[in-house]
Amino acid sequence: MASIKYPLILINFKAYSQSSGKKAVELAKVAEKVSKDTGITIAVAPQLTDLALVASQVEIPVFSQHVDAVDPGSRTGHVTLEAVRDAGAIGTMLNHSERRVRADEVDVVVKKAEKLGLVTVVCANTPEVTAAMAALGPDMVAIEPPELIGTGIPVSKAKPEVVLNSVKLVKKVNPSVKVLCGAGITTGDDVAAAIKLGTVGVLLASGVVKAKDWEKAIRDLVAPLLK
Amino acid sequence: MASIKYPLILINFKAYSQSSGKKAVELAKVAEKVSKDTGITIAVAPQLTDLALVASQVEIPVFSQHVDAVDPGSRTGHVTLEAVRDAGAIGTMLNHSERRVRADEVDVVVKKAEKLGLVTVVCANTPEVTAAMAALGPDMVAIEPPELIGTGIPVSKAKPEVVLNSVKLVKKVNPSVKVLCGAGITTGDDVAAAIKLGTVGVLLASGVVKAKDWEKAIRDLVAPLLK
Amino acid sequence: MASIKYPLILINFKAYSQSSGKKAVELAKVAEKVSKDTGITIAVAPQLTDLALVASQVEIPVFSQHVDAVDPGSRTGHVTLEAVRDAGAIGTMLNHSERRVRADEVDVVVKKAEKLGLVTVVCANTPEVTAAMAALGPDMVAIEPPELIGTGIPVSKAKPEVVLNSVKLVKKVNPSVKVLCGAGITTGDDVAAAIKLGTVGVLLASGVVKAKDWEKAIRDLVAPLLK
Amino acid sequence: MASIKYPLILINFKAYSQSSGKKAVELAKVAEKVSKDTGITIAVAPQLTDLALVASQVEIPVFSQHVDAVDPGSRTGHVTLEAVRDAGAIGTMLNHSERRVRADEVDVVVKKAEKLGLVTVVCANTPEVTAAMAALGPDMVAIEPPELIGTGIPVSKAKPEVVLNSVKLVKKVNPSVKVLCGAGITTGDDVAAAIKLGTVGVLLASGVVKAKDWEKAIRDLVAPLLK
Repeated sequence: MASIKYPLILINFKAYSQSSGKKAVELAKVAEKVSKDTGITIAVAPQLTDLALVASQVEIPVFSQHVDAVDPGSRTGHVTLEAVRDAGAIGTMLNHSERRVRADEVDVVVKKAEKLGLVTVVCANTPEVTAAMAALGPDMVAIEPPELIGTGIPVSKAKPEVVLNSVKLVKKVNPSVKVLCGAGITTGDDVAAAIKLGTVGVLLASGVVKAKDWEKAIRDLVAPLLK
Repeated sequence: MASIKYPLILINFKAYSQSSGKKAVELAKVAEKVSKDTGITIAVAPQLTDLALVASQVEIPVFSQHVDAVDPGSRTGHVTLEAVRDAGAIGTMLNHSERRVRADEVDVVVKKAEKLGLVTVVCANTPEVTAAMAALGPDMVAIEPPELIGTGIPVSKAKPEVVLNSVKLVKKVNPSVKVLCGAGITTGDDVAAAIKLGTVGVLLASGVVKAKDWEKAIRDLVAPLLK
Repeated sequence: MASIKYPLILINFKAYSQSSGKKAVELAKVAEKVSKDTGITIAVAPQLTDLALVASQVEIPVFSQHVDAVDPGSRTGHVTLEAVRDAGAIGTMLNHSERRVRADEVDVVVKKAEKLGLVTVVCANTPEVTAAMAALGPDMVAIEPPELIGTGIPVSKAKPEVVLNSVKLVKKVNPSVKVLCGAGITTGDDVAAAIKLGTVGVLLASGVVKAKDWEKAIRDLVAPLLK
Repeated sequence: MASIKYPLILINFKAYSQSSGKKAVELAKVAEKVSKDTGITIAVAPQLTDLALVASQVEIPVFSQHVDAVDPGSRTGHVTLEAVRDAGAIGTMLNHSERRVRADEVDVVVKKAEKLGLVTVVCANTPEVTAAMAALGPDMVAIEPPELIGTGIPVSKAKPEVVLNSVKLVKKVNPSVKVLCGAGITTGDDVAAAIKLGTVGVLLASGVVKAKDWEKAIRDLVAPLLK
């Protein structure tokens, strides 16, 4: 079964043009290089269309950005967990604020991912929804207040109570579920603050993808984890 | 700008396990081989997750099975037309019966695909919906009665009036739009029947993907087009 | 079978608090009064929850704001055409920019409404989508550029080419379908301009619902139709 | 603030033709009569289109079958909590297996309903999803295994472990949330079994709606609650 060594830095490539197609492979290789140099787990979530290509080129964990709660077969334009596995990915994100799904779909995906040995990261927009997602038993939940996504204002500093409250509720509902936080994460300081709040790492996107120097941006993120 | 030489055989890999991951590349290479041998255009539509990988391995036209009507940027788990292009695909299918979208979304995608030089194949389930989709000006529409999909009972023989009526309505609404037909297509005879009804080719899936001998199945499909 | 006498003023109550619950009945009665006084057809589309109540209180045509493409039976939280009929409404709007549906759903609803003797008004956001909806054969299509909705800037004056182009395309695709226009309609002048562009009337909401004096606002709208 | 006296029998009219339009009022009056005679709380959830009409005719609690997570304003074809309140209903069902919504939507509706003094009943299909919904803090959750809905095979007898497990998980996650159960409930025995499993009542539909004698069916349901 796939497993992740924490802490974790998960870089979501979103649908940014800066990380699309061949540039997805380039960015993933930079992340791989920093991960190998530092020993810190850095995972990437490229666009759906780039998933198998990226996973064939790097050895760090690759996540799908989304998966549909359906089985293989006569289905067009869907992403199955089996396709994610066949593409060489380690698991999938789900329910990101930009691609929300229903709780019963998360339930189906989480139960099936466990059987297939895939890792699940279920996103949520409030502490209450984070607790609800934790009740479904994924490997990780990721609390991301949507109003901070892409702003560069880190949730771990601007709204620490949202992260703390999420960690507290998850501990009560399902203590085996790990918590990531995201939204506005850009620097190593933001990562350090996230860890202090009880998370096992961060989910971020523009802070790396839009950086002029990808390697420098990623090295800055992992720096506080090396001390 | 991308262009397609007709007649066209478009093989939809759907979410079948037989054509997932590395097997998607294998099947695409078989299609490429038959296309090179015969000069007939054979295109493939692998799973979303396999798109860039397959497109990097073959020279025949590769289509996405679906695209979202959104632009690149801060979007997670979506498929943009730009991602389809960056993946090396020639265009996209849209509105398949297994992944239907709204007419205004088809409108956005068709207008944008034209600007990007990508080819659009918009599916429809009835002659009236086929006419509606043709009014939006894609390169092709594909009429597929959902009740015949995956049955092996070819629409071109079992319901020729559905295909004929679609061709007639499209000619009236927007004569520059070409018509494919699909659902139950398995043999060269089915393809020949489709062409006689006024289509420029066929869209099929299980007839090839589930065949024991992919090459034999594809060669049988193109045979009547060589005479 | 239900039929509508043209020209038509269709007032969409939307989810405005000003026209919710008992106020929906009040507004409908004002519309009924002006209609009886002037002989002009004025129809109302109250909130879904108010449909049967409003229809039981007035004799002018009442439309549903939306309907689902499903049959009666074991379905929760849906609106069937049969429910619309049983509520006493004459028909339904569909595919409003604020509640868009897929083309195949419009196809199902239009075909079924014809059997049930209900009137259909299918909205569209561009001339091309208007043509697509006309291909499906509803009683009316309504072109409403979403960027003008609720602005008070009337489509019939600000973007006459959008209305003209829609009328032209509909005439080509399906000349039996009548055209309404909407978005920004507030005054009798806007209505007069709409009629001159080839429409049979208007669809409006805030111009009446948010008016301080409902009767004055509606009388102003119908005035140019009396000359 | 609205409050409910338990135990509760909640009758969902669904989109059944037997309980549509005027027949919705008739059925609600029968439920009201039995409730007055016995002192047991019997609530009804008519079709959306019948909501205000039914609520204006009876004094028992009336629920909406669904609500959208949106505010009043320029929105067409949606059901707001304010519309539910203005219609005279006491609250709303949400997330029924036949009309599922996302967890973040449940979160918005539950928080807003509390402010408006409306009662929420959130449905769920598995014990895990029931726990997730309880984490969002509604007044009630209703566990309904979808495979038993409409079968006449009562969940409280056929799958008691599903109900028990749901009750146990809800007690852990959020003990202030009450639990209903549904699916296949038809008789007083089924209700008695449900209460013994730790629920405060039942949610049912066809067992009453399709009964030849509505009053007899409802009297049978409440009988064990009178002892």
